[in-house]
Amino acid sequence: MKIAILLYENMTALDAIGPYEVLSRLPEARVLFTGETKGLVRTDTRFLGLSADHALGDVPEADLLLIPGGPGDQAVRKNEAILDWVRGIHEGSQFTTSVCTGSLILGAAGVLKGLRATTHWTQLETLREYGAEPTRERTVEQGKVITAAGVSAGIDMGLQLIKKIVGNDFAQAIQLGIEYDPKPPFDTGAPDKAPPAIVELVRASMSY
Amino acid sequence: MKIAILLYENMTALDAIGPYEVLSRLPEARVLFTGETKGLVRTDTRFLGLSADHALGDVPEADLLLIPGGPGDQAVRKNEAILDWVRGIHEGSQFTTSVCTGSLILGAAGVLKGLRATTHWTQLETLREYGAEPTRERTVEQGKVITAAGVSAGIDMGLQLIKKIVGNDFAQAIQLGIEYDPKPPFDTGAPDKAPPAIVELVRASMSY
Repeated sequence: MKIAILLYENMTALDAIGPYEVLSRLPEARVLFTGETKGLVRTDTRFLGLSADHALGDVPEADLLLIPGGPGDQAVRKNEAILDWVRGIHEGSQFTTSVCTGSLILGAAGVLKGLRATTHWTQLETLREYGAEPTRERTVEQGKVITAAGVSAGIDMGLQLIKKIVGNDFAQAIQLGIEYDPKPPFDTGAPDKAPPAIVELVRASMSY
Repeated sequence: MKIAILLYENMTALDAIGPYEVLSRLPEARVLFTGETKGLVRTDTRFLGLSADHALGDVPEADLLLIPGGPGDQAVRKNEAILDWVRGIHEGSQFTTSVCTGSLILGAAGVLKGLRATTHWTQLETLREYGAEPTRERTVEQGKVITAAGVSAGIDMGLQLIKKIVGNDFAQAIQLGIEYDPKPPFDTGAPDKAPPAIVELVRASMSY
């Protein structure tokens, strides 16, 4: 299975690396980290460089497309070269997926018209601009298009994809392999669970 | 806070990127991805290149040291230049931490003598070689030395560190910011929860 993961400036690393870590363990997986051009991409904190080993033109098709989110999504949503590439890959893909505000890029490419979709909880309403219906679920599946909520939701989506592609046993083995038995220190990972002051703090820091 | 994260060939990406994603959001965090030499490091799947922006000699001290795991730990455990660096940073650190088999590297550097520690569940017994007492917990805190279990446990450890360093409010905000409200598809993320056949499958694939 050929898996193309888009890398771009100011993306959020975990959006891509969470699902990569599970999907890359699929039998015969080939993961192609793809940027507008080949070379290093700096993530949103500027502290981390990820290597885009492939340029858009090197990857004309893929079985699974994954678009991560992050503040850099704004520039990508106006980048016709990248949006054209997304449309092209989507045409022949088995799965077209996103994490966090990566769904806004899918939206800008026209992929989400008439579909239910999710994104980071602070950006849900923006999905309407692209004809999608915002949905507060951790992952939303609409045929071959699967969108995941903020950042860490990509790990759950990755495991679900493995379950769909090769079945329960393999997905359980991968989950055990990465010891994914989460014990967050708080139960504040969703806006309806966190104290209102914390929700407002995060909303303010994420409005852009 | 100066955070040094070791990068090395054949490491597991999520071990580093999970805690990076939360720790980098600390106020005044500075994250230094550090390799034996500057340049690209390929992860264990060979599909991903991470940039070591700094060489060992460029980072003589740090407030927080984080050592990720992965099959490449075996070579690092014999690499005296890296082990010397780990010892040097540990001497002046506020926190010395590891994820997955990163604890075996801490062990090889002599940091775990007489301490309880954890690692990936398949490698627990190896900790004894370094005078540590293997402990099946998701994170194990022994003074300033904190070790986390396999791969995804680093996210939980990162949030715990933020809680210790700047308190509950900020840690809750970060957890909400990365929407860390995990919904794994199965409850098989630990060896005592997974079917025995799955446990054996993973153990066999991870014995090296």
